[in-house]
Amino acid sequence: MFDPASLKYDAKGLIPAIAQDHRSGEVLMMAWMNAEAVQRTLETGRVTYWSRSRQGFWVKGQSSGHVQKLVELRVDCDRDCLLLLVDQHGPACHTNRRSCFYTAIREGAEVVIMEPSEA
Amino acid sequence: MFDPASLKYDAKGLIPAIAQDHRSGEVLMMAWMNAEAVQRTLETGRVTYWSRSRQGFWVKGQSSGHVQKLVELRVDCDRDCLLLLVDQHGPACHTNRRSCFYTAIREGAEVVIMEPSEA
Repeated sequence: MFDPASLKYDAKGLIPAIAQDHRSGEVLMMAWMNAEAVQRTLETGRVTYWSRSRQGFWVKGQSSGHVQKLVELRVDCDRDCLLLLVDQHGPACHTNRRSCFYTAIREGAEVVIMEPSEA
Repeated sequence: MFDPASLKYDAKGLIPAIAQDHRSGEVLMMAWMNAEAVQRTLETGRVTYWSRSRQGFWVKGQSSGHVQKLVELRVDCDRDCLLLLVDQHGPACHTNRRSCFYTAIREGAEVVIMEPSEA
C-alpha cells in the first residue's frame, strides 16, 4: 500500500505538486501538499493542496467551482515531487486562464500568450 | 526586458522549474534554479539547474549527454514557478527512464509504469 508518509517533504512538511490536464497534457499549475493533503486527495478524488499563504487545506475549486478531479497521482524518482493528472473543470488559474503559465519569455521579453476565459 | 531577479525565490534563493517535452507534452522532471541558473539557461539555451545536493550549477546532460535544449521558458502567475518547454535528448531521469514520474498510485499501490531505455 502507498503511504503518503513515505514521500520526502521539505523542512515545512510540504511537497510540490504539478497539476497536468490528463487529456491535453497541458501543465496547469504547481502548488504544495502536506502528507494529509496527499491523503485527502487520494481518498476524495478532489485535489486538495496546502495553502502556504492561508496556512490551511485548499480544496481546489471549493469557492470558485473550478474543481480538479484526480485521475492519477504519480511520484518522481526522488519521491520529492508529485505529478497529478487531473480533470480540470474551468480555468485552473485565479486570473481565469486555463493555466497559470501564461507568460512566456520570448526574445528577452515577457509575452502574455493566453487570455482569460470569457465564461 | 525580462529580468531573472524579478522572479520570487524561496528562502534559499531557489525557484522550482518543471521540464516538459515540447512535442509530446510529457512532464519529464522537476528541479530547482537560482537567478543565475535562469540567466544561464536563457543565454545558452541549455537548461541549467542548481543542484541542491551538490550545491553547484548542473548543466543538464553535461555528464550523461542527455541534454535539454530550451524551447521556451514560461513563468506562472505568482512568478514563483517556471515551466520549461524542452527538447530532451535521451531519457530525462537518472534511472534512464524518459520521465522521472514513472511511479503511479493505482488502487492504493505503487505501480511502475515506465521501463528504462535500452540504449
